[in-house]
Amino acid sequence: MITWLGALMTVLLLKNLLKVRCGVLTVETEHVDVATLEKLEQQGIDCEPKASTIRIIQDKYLQKVHFSRHGIPLPEFMEINNLEETKRAGELYGYPLMIKGKRLAYDGRGNAVAKSEGELSSAIDGVHMVIVTWDWRILGGFGRGLYVEKWAPFIKELAVIVARGRDNSILCYPVVETIHKENICHIVKAPADVPWRIRKLANDVAYKAISSLEGAGVFAVELFLTRDGQILLNEVAPRPHNSGHHTIESCYTSQFEQHLRAVVGLPLGDPSMKTPAAIMYNLLGEDEGEPGFKVAHQLIARALEIPGATAHWYDKPEMRRQRKMGHITLVGPSVGVLEARRKSMLREEGYENRNEVAPRVGIVMGSDSDLPVMKDAARILNMFGVSTEVRIVSAHRTPELMYSYASSARERGIQVIIAGAGGAAHLPGMVASLTPLPVIGVPVRASTLDGIDSLLSIVQMPRGVPVATVAVNNATNAGLLAVRMLGVGDADLLARMNQYQEDTRDYVLTKAEKLRKDGWEAYLNQ
Amino acid sequence: MITWLGALMTVLLLKNLLKVRCGVLTVETEHVDVATLEKLEQQGIDCEPKASTIRIIQDKYLQKVHFSRHGIPLPEFMEINNLEETKRAGELYGYPLMIKGKRLAYDGRGNAVAKSEGELSSAIDGVHMVIVTWDWRILGGFGRGLYVEKWAPFIKELAVIVARGRDNSILCYPVVETIHKENICHIVKAPADVPWRIRKLANDVAYKAISSLEGAGVFAVELFLTRDGQILLNEVAPRPHNSGHHTIESCYTSQFEQHLRAVVGLPLGDPSMKTPAAIMYNLLGEDEGEPGFKVAHQLIARALEIPGATAHWYDKPEMRRQRKMGHITLVGPSVGVLEARRKSMLREEGYENRNEVAPRVGIVMGSDSDLPVMKDAARILNMFGVSTEVRIVSAHRTPELMYSYASSARERGIQVIIAGAGGAAHLPGMVASLTPLPVIGVPVRASTLDGIDSLLSIVQMPRGVPVATVAVNNATNAGLLAVRMLGVGDADLLARMNQYQEDTRDYVLTKAEKLRKDGWEAYLNQ
Repeated sequence: MITWLGALMTVLLLKNLLKVRCGVLTVETEHVDVATLEKLEQQGIDCEPKASTIRIIQDKYLQKVHFSRHGIPLPEFMEINNLEETKRAGELYGYPLMIKGKRLAYDGRGNAVAKSEGELSSAIDGVHMVIVTWDWRILGGFGRGLYVEKWAPFIKELAVIVARGRDNSILCYPVVETIHKENICHIVKAPADVPWRIRKLANDVAYKAISSLEGAGVFAVELFLTRDGQILLNEVAPRPHNSGHHTIESCYTSQFEQHLRAVVGLPLGDPSMKTPAAIMYNLLGEDEGEPGFKVAHQLIARALEIPGATAHWYDKPEMRRQRKMGHITLVGPSVGVLEARRKSMLREEGYENRNEVAPRVGIVMGSDSDLPVMKDAARILNMFGVSTEVRIVSAHRTPELMYSYASSARERGIQVIIAGAGGAAHLPGMVASLTPLPVIGVPVRASTLDGIDSLLSIVQMPRGVPVATVAVNNATNAGLLAVRMLGVGDADLLARMNQYQEDTRDYVLTKAEKLRKDGWEAYLNQ
Repeated sequence: MITWLGALMTVLLLKNLLKVRCGVLTVETEHVDVATLEKLEQQGIDCEPKASTIRIIQDKYLQKVHFSRHGIPLPEFMEINNLEETKRAGELYGYPLMIKGKRLAYDGRGNAVAKSEGELSSAIDGVHMVIVTWDWRILGGFGRGLYVEKWAPFIKELAVIVARGRDNSILCYPVVETIHKENICHIVKAPADVPWRIRKLANDVAYKAISSLEGAGVFAVELFLTRDGQILLNEVAPRPHNSGHHTIESCYTSQFEQHLRAVVGLPLGDPSMKTPAAIMYNLLGEDEGEPGFKVAHQLIARALEIPGATAHWYDKPEMRRQRKMGHITLVGPSVGVLEARRKSMLREEGYENRNEVAPRVGIVMGSDSDLPVMKDAARILNMFGVSTEVRIVSAHRTPELMYSYASSARERGIQVIIAGAGGAAHLPGMVASLTPLPVIGVPVRASTLDGIDSLLSIVQMPRGVPVATVAVNNATNAGLLAVRMLGVGDADLLARMNQYQEDTRDYVLTKAEKLRKDGWEAYLNQ
């Protein structure tokens, strides 16, 4: 119903465009009548992206053929016209087997999975009951156009928003991870927590895919990351996309502004992130009617209390199960911190009342005998209002704990680690080898050698793994160094450090003035 | 004309409100008919902020009396009713003397300066020719209500946006510096480059001022910073304000969203900055007609090419000299970097074609003999795509250069400094004492003592001034440490560091596998 009404409206709208002055025409969905677009292009209306691109993308089979021809890696696929062909595809590709409608498929509609040959018939029926074409023909089953796809053994789904200007300049947004729920995008994490190599690969595939299409605009490239580290193209949308909604709050240029810049021929904006991390959570319709609205509105109410959260409510008149009713974007210092906030918002188990501030600095030491020294770092961080956790983690006596602490620190939102150790002081260096975070080492003076053993054990790290070493027993400086490091992304902290330096200077000048006035003898006798 | 037409429209609008369901009423200007607001309040309409607040604020003399009674520091002032009183005020306060209209003053209208007693008459005439009141009376000269203010010897103008919830919770946005041009706000820098103590003081004054008023909403508090480090209140606006426009792009909650949250009784949002810095540049009308539009549009076109710049065009039908036609906000890593971008956008002298990337890391060394060691840091930073400058700066031979380099580094946009030195190695510690930035020290091995002199000179810093020391001659690790530090505010760099660590591991594992397969003798013989 919605589909053919939309189609009818599109046709009427496009025909009216001819009568008014229209600089450029773009689309907000690929499910439009391409024949009309082509006619408009022939009559001199500038369509961005080009009708040829919409034609390729709106038929997912044609899309696969196109990208396959351009050397883009994607799961194997073939057209099917009857049950026999489908069975042969099943023998070739194995099960589970994806059965997909060529056209008018979105948000999980038009896709079905057959886990075995016995499920093929029902899967084909399940793809979509019928579709109504632009010229009012009703198609169903194989008549609507189907193809099969080999199951991609993916471990994550990734997406890249790609902008292409009218001058063919191409810019990619950061790679994000998309988490689906019943085939519908549910959560987007930016940037994706995958190795840099994978991000680069995903970017390359996305760049190459969009280079093969014609016209300007923003495109979303959905990708699979397979168990063996390959990136396969899933599908492309020729428009701003759910996986790019986070850009409104997290990037210098939102995908919507970027699309407009692209289609009207302005220079493309900077697509990089202005916040270190973002999580987008879709508000999917639960049930029809009031209860569903109540749940969504409760969630929005909770989001209003979360720092860095922005709620978007689309104000759709009706709620349906799995319908996208709105979304909530959280931006902040790391995906780990935002995940905790998201779970707290959803009252997930273990996160019901977690309003505590996530620690930004972790202070670890090999033994409680180091605490009298290391406490000075904690005091400095408290003074600067930096949330801190203090833990005993020994390289030699609790190696497993050290491994898990260091390798999970970043994901938990820790930004700097201070590690203190004495003697054959291995903790700072070992922690540094297990995390990309900056690690500050405090050589604690042990009973012999006056701390020179601790100092050299910490500072003389091999090439590749740096430890920022401070003076023997000088945990105060470790705390101050951590504040300076956090200041790299926090102008307030930098200003407070400046103030600290001025206060220290004034304190010393007061003493200097006293010495000048009182003379050295009186000064000493006080 | 605009004024009384606006007033008439306000009255009509407010009267109509009584007929419709209205949850809460707020204002976007303080120049409204307060009597009507009060009548509406009596009839049960919820006005936020309260009519009492609007009454105090719209009469600037009443405002001064109010804040003075509440102990808020502000320049001395007195009411004037005739030239004689004005002359006496001039004798008391000295010249220059500010003469101000009590009401309907904004953007420099309604203010005049008399530099001597001889200028008093013309200044009084210059305040405003006439004003038309709500009840159509035409007032001019003393009849419109004037007061004088003692000249505040300010060195900077600051502003704080303060949000007040319906539950009386109060949150302050970061203190900004406002730069005026012919009494009209021209540039806003966030955060203000003033010591932290001044920022705290400005916050305290703003907080106290808004606490003394009734009702919810966003308020702008304009302040003077005097030569002797005092903060004086200039004036308050009971609404989102030009000095808070940057919050749209730079803060977790924009002042506009915050105002709505406040007046409808939602929890206030996080007012802190999500980007380290922002600069807002007002597009002020130049001349009437086309040429003015052309200049503004050229500027917007240039802004579109600047990373992190967003143009806002208000689409006002007419341009007038000094009229606010739009604004451009730049957000990015530091006010220094943004200032260079703003000047480049305006084609200011020396910035005409400065499109080079501002360096994020400064590598300094005492002598070119350190370069063979220090080059490794530059190579690492190049590899990670971090913009870097390499300079010779000697603590002992160019102390003035060292002073100016270190103390200006932050303002120029440098985020981390790497300093290498040998022997009595003073450079890293001296640089660290002159900047709040994190400083990495590389002990360069000199001809004697095998580097132990350099190491101890750099690492054994006194409490208060930390240097992040790496191993002797290990500038590679200094580069890697700088990347980790920048990763605190740059998730991409952190991911790349992770990849670097994985690549290093794989490289070693390849060698390990080769040794296992070939055996140690064959391995050694290769």
